[in-house]
This record gives sequence, C-alpha cells and structure tokens, in this order.
Amino acid sequence: MTTLDEDLEDAAAAGGDPLHPGVRRARAWLSRAVEPGTVDLWRYVDHLGPVAAVQRLRSGAAPDTLRSLVGARAGQDATQADLQRAERCGARLVTPEADEWPFLQLHALTLAVAAESADRRRQSDRTKAPVPPLALWVRGSGRLDELADRSVAVVGSRASTAYGEHVAAELGHQLGERGWTVVSGGAFGIDAAAHRGALAAVAPTIAVLSCGVDRPYPAAHGALFHRIAETGLLLSEWPPGSAPLRHRFLVRNRLIAALTRGTVVVEAAARSGALATARRAQDLGRSVLVVPGPVTSAMSVGCHELLRDERLGARLVTSAAHVIEEVGSIGSDLADPAPRPESVRDGLSDVAARILDACPVRVGVSPERLAAVAGCDVLEVLRVLPALELADLVQWTGTGWRVAPPVEATRARARPGAAS
Amino acid sequence: MTTLDEDLEDAAAAGGDPLHPGVRRARAWLSRAVEPGTVDLWRYVDHLGPVAAVQRLRSGAAPDTLRSLVGARAGQDATQADLQRAERCGARLVTPEADEWPFLQLHALTLAVAAESADRRRQSDRTKAPVPPLALWVRGSGRLDELADRSVAVVGSRASTAYGEHVAAELGHQLGERGWTVVSGGAFGIDAAAHRGALAAVAPTIAVLSCGVDRPYPAAHGALFHRIAETGLLLSEWPPGSAPLRHRFLVRNRLIAALTRGTVVVEAAARSGALATARRAQDLGRSVLVVPGPVTSAMSVGCHELLRDERLGARLVTSAAHVIEEVGSIGSDLADPAPRPESVRDGLSDVAARILDACPVRVGVSPERLAAVAGCDVLEVLRVLPALELADLVQWTGTGWRVAPPVEATRARARPGAAS
Repeated sequence: MTTLDEDLEDAAAAGGDPLHPGVRRARAWLSRAVEPGTVDLWRYVDHLGPVAAVQRLRSGAAPDTLRSLVGARAGQDATQADLQRAERCGARLVTPEADEWPFLQLHALTLAVAAESADRRRQSDRTKAPVPPLALWVRGSGRLDELADRSVAVVGSRASTAYGEHVAAELGHQLGERGWTVVSGGAFGIDAAAHRGALAAVAPTIAVLSCGVDRPYPAAHGALFHRIAETGLLLSEWPPGSAPLRHRFLVRNRLIAALTRGTVVVEAAARSGALATARRAQDLGRSVLVVPGPVTSAMSVGCHELLRDERLGARLVTSAAHVIEEVGSIGSDLADPAPRPESVRDGLSDVAARILDACPVRVGVSPERLAAVAGCDVLEVLRVLPALELADLVQWTGTGWRVAPPVEATRARARPGAAS
Repeated sequence: MTTLDEDLEDAAAAGGDPLHPGVRRARAWLSRAVEPGTVDLWRYVDHLGPVAAVQRLRSGAAPDTLRSLVGARAGQDATQADLQRAERCGARLVTPEADEWPFLQLHALTLAVAAESADRRRQSDRTKAPVPPLALWVRGSGRLDELADRSVAVVGSRASTAYGEHVAAELGHQLGERGWTVVSGGAFGIDAAAHRGALAAVAPTIAVLSCGVDRPYPAAHGALFHRIAETGLLLSEWPPGSAPLRHRFLVRNRLIAALTRGTVVVEAAARSGALATARRAQDLGRSVLVVPGPVTSAMSVGCHELLRDERLGARLVTSAAHVIEEVGSIGSDLADPAPRPESVRDGLSDVAARILDACPVRVGVSPERLAAVAGCDVLEVLRVLPALELADLVQWTGTGWRVAPPVEATRARARPGAAS
C-alpha cells in the first residue's frame, strides 16, 4: 500500500491528470485537514490544484498563514482509513474532478468567493463565507448532480409545532410527487418532517449533514437516514466519524442554499438557524420562500420577520404549487418531453431567450461571457442554463456552453466536468 | 313648517351661504334619493352645489340620465322625517359644509373620482367607484374629523376563527391604547372583535355601516353599537331606517378605506369582502396591511393571496407596533408634544421635509400645488399634511396650506373646511 506522499508524487508526475488516484487522496486529506468555509485555503487549492497544495501544506512550503489553519493535522494521514470507513457504510468521496460533482449548483459559490477580500480580516465570517466545498462525502444510491438539479431546500426549527411539521411533510410529499428533490439538514422537527414527506412520496431526498455520513446525528434519526440513503443521499463535507460541532451547522447551511434552486423556511423562531440558511440562499441569488403561520406562534416569528424584510425579497408560499411556480419557471414546463423544439423556445422567458441567443453555435463560452452578451446577471445565467440543457437547447462542450445540435445528436451529451 | 322646495328657494336666494339650513336639507334629500357611489350624480352636485342640483333633479331640469338614476324618488321628500328620526336616536347629519366633515381623509376620493371617465360605460363599477359621500349620518359622541385623523381600519371575515378574533381583538386593544381609532364595519367576526378590543381599551372606535344608524345590522350587535356610540361613532351614508342591502356593503367599503391611513386585513377567505376593502385602500394610496395565519386555514387564504400579489404592495404585520410603524411614520413620533420645533423638523422624513419646504409663509396653497413644488404625489402630500399640522408646522388658512406661525399663535388654528 502506497503512502499518501508517494501517491501525491505519482500524481504530480502524471502532470495534472484529474483522474489520477492521488488527486482523490489529496481531496480526502483536505477534507480532514481543513475546516470547510476557509476562503484562503480554498483559493490556495484552486490555484495550485489539490495535489501540489497538499504537498506544500504537508512539507511546510505553504505560507505560514495557511499552515497555521491546518496545524498539527499537516503531518497526519487518515486518508486510507477514511476512504475504507466510507466504503464500509456504502459511502463514496465525490470530488470536483468527478462527473457527479454538482458543478452548476456550486458555481454560484465559486462566483461569490471570488468577491471576497484578499485581506483575511475583511473576509466574511467563516459561518457566512461563500466557499465551495473541497470535496463531498456522499452516501446513498442517487447521483448527486442529477438529484440536485431540480431540488428545493425545506428547512426550519428543530423545536417545531405540529402545524409546522404537517406543512413541511405536505410540502416534502408534494414536491417529491412532482419530481423535485427535497434537500434539508436531517435535524429534528421541520427537517425530518420534510424528508419523511418526500420518502412517503417514494421520492429521493438529500440530507446535508454537519457530521460524518457514517455517524448520523441526531442518533435517533438512524432509521430515517438509512431510508434516505436507499433512494436519496446523505451528504457531508466532513470525513466519516466527524462530530456535529456547533459551528459546523452554520457552515453547512451554505451548501443547502447552494445546492438548491430555492430555500423554503417552514417554521423559524426569532434566531433560528433556518434564517441563516435563507440569508445564504439570498446571497447566492436563490429564491427565498417562506411559509407563514399564526402570529401567536413563537415558531413563526422568524418566518414573519423574513417576509417583512423588504431587502430580502422573500416570497410567501402556502403550497408546493407556489414553490414550483417560483423555482421551476421554465424548468417545470420542460419536465415533459417537448414534441416540437420551436414550441419549447416559444415558452422561454425573456431572459432565457436572451441567454439562448447569446450561445455560440460552435465554440463553447463561459457563463460570464453569456451574461455579458445577454445583458443579465451571471447568477441568472447559472439559473437558466440547466433548464435550457434539459430542453436540449444548449450543450456543455467541456470548456463552455454552446447551442445544442439537433436533438438526435445530443442524447449522449457530456456532463459538466466530464472529460470531453 | 316650510316645505323642502321653499327651503331650497330660500337657500338659493341666500346666494350660496353654505350654512343655510336649506343646504343641509338638500344634502339630506340627496342621501335618500341617490345611491352612493354614483359618479355622474356626485359630479352634478359638486358642479352646481347641493341646492341647485336638488332643485333641478326635482323639477325635471336635470339631464335625463341623472333623473333616471333618481327615478320616482325625485318627487318625494322625507327630509324632515329623516332628520327627526336621526335626532331621536342621537344622530346628526354631517355634510361637506360642516366643520366636522373629514375633509382631508375624503380628499383622496375627490382626487380619484376626477380620474373617472366622463363616459358612463367606461366608469368603474359602482361597487368600486371612488366617489366621495354626499353626506354622512353620524351617531355618537366623537367628532368625526378628529377621530378619523389617526385611524386604522381593521377588517376581516364574518366567519372568523378563534385565532382571527383573538388577533383582531389584540390589535384593536393595542391600537386603541396608543391613541389610534379603530374603524371597521360592525359585522360579525373580525369586525366585532376589533371594535370590542378598542372598547376594552376605553378607546373610541368607528363602525361604518351600510344601513341606517338607528337600525344597526346585525341586530345581535345592538348592545355593541350602543357602546360604540358612547365613545366613538356609528357612521352611514344611508338615511335612518335604511336596510343593509347586499351591494351596499361593497359601496360602503370605499369609505372604510378612505377614512383611515391604512387597512389591516386579519382573516379573509378566498373571496372575502375584506379583500375588496384592501383593494380600495390601495386604489386610494393607503397602506394595505395583512395578518398572516396558518396556511391550513381557509380563513387565511385571502390574506396570503394579498401578500403574494406583488402589485398590491401589501405589508405583513403581526402586531399593533408593526401597524403603527407603517401608518404612523412621523405622526406617531409627533404624538408626544415636541419640546423643540427644530428637533421635530429634524425627525421628518425626506418627503415630509420637502413638502414642508414647499409651503409658502403667507398665502395658503392647494395640496396639488404642494405636490408639484415638492416633486411628489398628491396622495403623499395628503398623507403627510395631517402630521405636519399636528406638529404645528403647517396651517390651513381656509383656502390652502401655509407654514404655521410660531407655536404660541397656532393653538386656535382653523380646521379644514371651517370658515376662516
């Protein structure tokens, strides 16, 4: 069995082949050595690539400020143990180099982290910093990028009321029935009700955890997590065996917001963590949707404050139909195979039509370029592209987006991130 | 005892003295002969004055289209009987010529009716037309213009839930405690709960009825109406003895909207009349405030639809403090006597400061003129002026608004509509 450092050297010698096993092992090491949400470390890895970044962090060649973030963990190596432990519980490590990586969803974080200051003192607090994950531990039978494509977060208080649990379960069930993945945090209360509602509709659901996927928290949800993994996914940035530390819940929330097209807050007390998730969703240009409740209920105070905050632009929703109206837009109409491409195009929103018109026919271009040509926000482009792709109107070339060739030729179209 | 026609002739000979008893009798006649909310008849009275208008409607000199609206009632005269009947139940007729007329509040209707088409087929439906009342029958000890000055409508379904009644009563009580007049329709359910909440705070409240003030409807509210009249007011456009016809409820709603600074909808089913009141409030530039409820309650469906309608701009409120924040603005701060005029001015909103700056020092000018100079909407001016007047910053001269002289000189300031 090779050591980590040997594998890294091999990978470095292979000249940046993203599929080399050393890359994967470097990501596994990072997921234990680095607390997620650290702007400077993410930038270091993004800049050098995972192999060189890990080599320098371990050898002491990395800047002191970064090495201090890793600390004593620099010399340790639990990668083999972590990967084996994952395998034993049916989990896998999904990295940005893999086909399954939810590239489109997480691109909103990539864009947002670019806006963070270079000065560490001016960067967002780590619980709020929009840093993409370095790797994801995934347990379950679903494919992450596909399940995340049409997904909605349903979040809320742990100390929920019967009313809130009823509404969350109804939403989870109806969203599941209509082909949407319900994403939540696996916690007691609203989260669990939303997951259970989706499971009752025999629909996949994703629990984004702040602990290891082999060590679900809360422990009482062992059976629930087992059921989720059967058709959906358990997801974590932390390696197997990790404990659900308090601050990790807040760091985790940005992933729930980023992976989904919108976040529905069902019940939230005045200082609920669900409000933080809603704010992260807004930061990333996602829809913030809020279920109202009795004004006499402390568990709806946070929801009502979200709806009263005009800067937030939260939308009141009372049913899955309202939610889909907000996050589905053209995507929902395109769920049915469209018989005539012309009619699909006719059904596009103004901005979607402009983005499609901005796509070149031959060479693929970046979302940023599309935004500039279409005259809209990059986040808007990232929101619309998956639906255009689903409708076979645009295509990812491996380096950029272009207009898709006639339908027959696109059935085996490349996924974002896949070698082209 | 003189006949109506003799009184009218006398008044006509008196050359337009607004205090002549014939004017009052003409208004009493109009209140029985003309169904409120009729654009063309209101314009006719506004153009000719009540005395000449009534003379022509009775003599047949008025255009056929208008005479057909009055029909057989043209030849009848119940004015003496109506006035006596009002007196017997402690009511009075308040006309636009009286000091007590809520001139400022109703000016929003005057402005809105001017925007109605001259072509009757293109005018708003009578249940929606923003027509000022021709006269008001008022029963109770309060003074209408003063009670309406700081008032909020609290409306909702008759078939309310315990939740809605609780919230309406709380709102009524807290608004009353803070010096606000609660205006509602005197109906079962939310209306009654709001009135009762205000009464429990020993605060005046106004019930705007769609039947005679001597014949309260519903009959089971006899005791409630009696208590309202003790400190507040019962108000109606229809003369004593009038029945609460179905369409009159909708015509009445524009008055509830116009008299108040904002309308709070507490509970409303999908097609509730309370929604109509909210829409009238928006038409008149008043705040539309909505209390959410459980999404599982049919009685909150209308409320949630109001909040989801982005064109309406309704604001979610959960407490009296939220309501006052919305309708009070500078008015609420000015409720306490301000020790230094400078600080009052400093506390003004941007638009209020511009309106104050637009007021001339000597000659009074119209709200329209103020709006033009201040560069804002006339409705905004009408919203801000009462607060500026309360703060002794502006003064009504009898013909227009001007900057108020130093505080000592303004204690006996004229009311709008009073002889100057």
